Amino acid sequence: MKAYFNDHFINNPELKLHVADLSMQRGYAIFDFLRTIKNVPLFLNDHLDRFYHSATAMHLSVKQSREELTGIIHQLIEQNEIPEAGIRIMLTGGYSADSYNPAEPNLIITCNPVKTATKEDFEKGYSVITYEHQRELPHIKSISYLTAVWLQPLLKQKKVNDVLYYNQQSITEFPRCNVFIVTKDGQLVTPVNNMLKGITRKHVLELAAEFIPVKERNITVDELMNAAEVFLTATTKKIIPVVKINDTIISNGKPGPVTAQLYRQFLVLEQSLI
Amino acid sequence: MKAYFNDHFINNPELKLHVADLSMQRGYAIFDFLRTIKNVPLFLNDHLDRFYHSATAMHLSVKQSREELTGIIHQLIEQNEIPEAGIRIMLTGGYSADSYNPAEPNLIITCNPVKTATKEDFEKGYSVITYEHQRELPHIKSISYLTAVWLQPLLKQKKVNDVLYYNQQSITEFPRCNVFIVTKDGQLVTPVNNMLKGITRKHVLELAAEFIPVKERNITVDELMNAAEVFLTATTKKIIPVVKINDTIISNGKPGPVTAQLYRQFLVLEQSLI
Repeated sequence: MKAYFNDHFINNPELKLHVADLSMQRGYAIFDFLRTIKNVPLFLNDHLDRFYHSATAMHLSVKQSREELTGIIHQLIEQNEIPEAGIRIMLTGGYSADSYNPAEPNLIITCNPVKTATKEDFEKGYSVITYEHQRELPHIKSISYLTAVWLQPLLKQKKVNDVLYYNQQSITEFPRCNVFIVTKDGQLVTPVNNMLKGITRKHVLELAAEFIPVKERNITVDELMNAAEVFLTATTKKIIPVVKINDTIISNGKPGPVTAQLYRQFLVLEQSLI
Repeated sequence: MKAYFNDHFINNPELKLHVADLSMQRGYAIFDFLRTIKNVPLFLNDHLDRFYHSATAMHLSVKQSREELTGIIHQLIEQNEIPEAGIRIMLTGGYSADSYNPAEPNLIITCNPVKTATKEDFEKGYSVITYEHQRELPHIKSISYLTAVWLQPLLKQKKVNDVLYYNQQSITEFPRCNVFIVTKDGQLVTPVNNMLKGITRKHVLELAAEFIPVKERNITVDELMNAAEVFLTATTKKIIPVVKINDTIISNGKPGPVTAQLYRQFLVLEQSLI
């Protein structure tokens, strides 16, 4: 596999950073992640918007212009020829002289085969637990997943698929996915504060606005537990119904009608792009 | 400079990890940091205690026994022959197959020249600001310093040396240092919750217990601002008086008598070890 490192293409196994890089010294780096189908990068502009936003918010500068980065990503996709690939664009704090203050960033772009959620994953849905936690600087897509990874043994022990964070009684997000609820009076609602705005979330909001009232606002844990439908969105997971939260079965344990409609429409949108 | 990587000594410039390591994918790694003087590692046992504690708490296993790690560190110090060195022992989440669940950890030990605080730094003291923030999993010495590094431009703009975190009106710690206050009725107090217990903190508590009442308990921001003396402790900074917090001058802007006595005694303790 080919990858890109700062200013040149490189073979993936050579993609190494010295441990002095601020990503390893202080966990200081941002990234973004998108998918390709048949060599078409999905929602590339949205992901580049967010990548440049994360970089600016983290006080890191990107040498490449948007046009240059777009060209590099297209070349990388063509060189690798992977039917379904995940592109990870990462920018680190660089080789810091004092192991603390950011230096010239290191840019790394990788292109690897990616597994996405299947129709079976959709039908089965997710069991999740809630957990009180607030991600640091949540509007930035940083590499900070300490609590998420640390919780993995607990999730395995509880035999659940993922963990939904809440902050003072308001749900925020999954470590790598956004959350939506359909209320019993037929509104689609999704959190807007203390979370990262996903690209799939954005397109689901646009699709939903055509056929259901949509609101971005705080959602309490109580409201979540009493929702008619709950689902999550993410780049590789697309849309997955949440059918169990802690010990509560949601939507009779099956994908609800609004979730199913959005899923069908999202697959159509995806196909329209390739 | 020589370093150590998993199971062998290596030249420092070769100390590189592939970007697939979980430290770069998800900020998942722990470390510890100690100093040497004249090839003597200071408080090595305390640092190893904490290193193994951090590893266990992060669900990461250390292949080397305590005796083996001690031997490796002594060999590394002898091979490098640096008058005052900083030893960084780091353990990462390893090359994770799914970029999320920890794999076999990578162990990296580096030995580099280190700058420590001088008598002039002590005399001058630190200006700091307070900031509401809680570090994730604070009892683990992880590489998670996102907010700390992100705040650097603000600290430069405000012309202060560091930032003191508080969590719901109780002060906790600096990003890399512990905090102590001397109350106006002559007690030495330091936080005990939601923070990392430093090795210098431990020895200062032991030294102080000989001549002043000592308590580990929560300290409110109000209590901090009304303290007779405030100081911080850390491996490279030893003891530094805090002489200004936000816009408030502490202890007339000079090192207080308790701080000065502890500083003298700490230097004596240090000399007694080499």
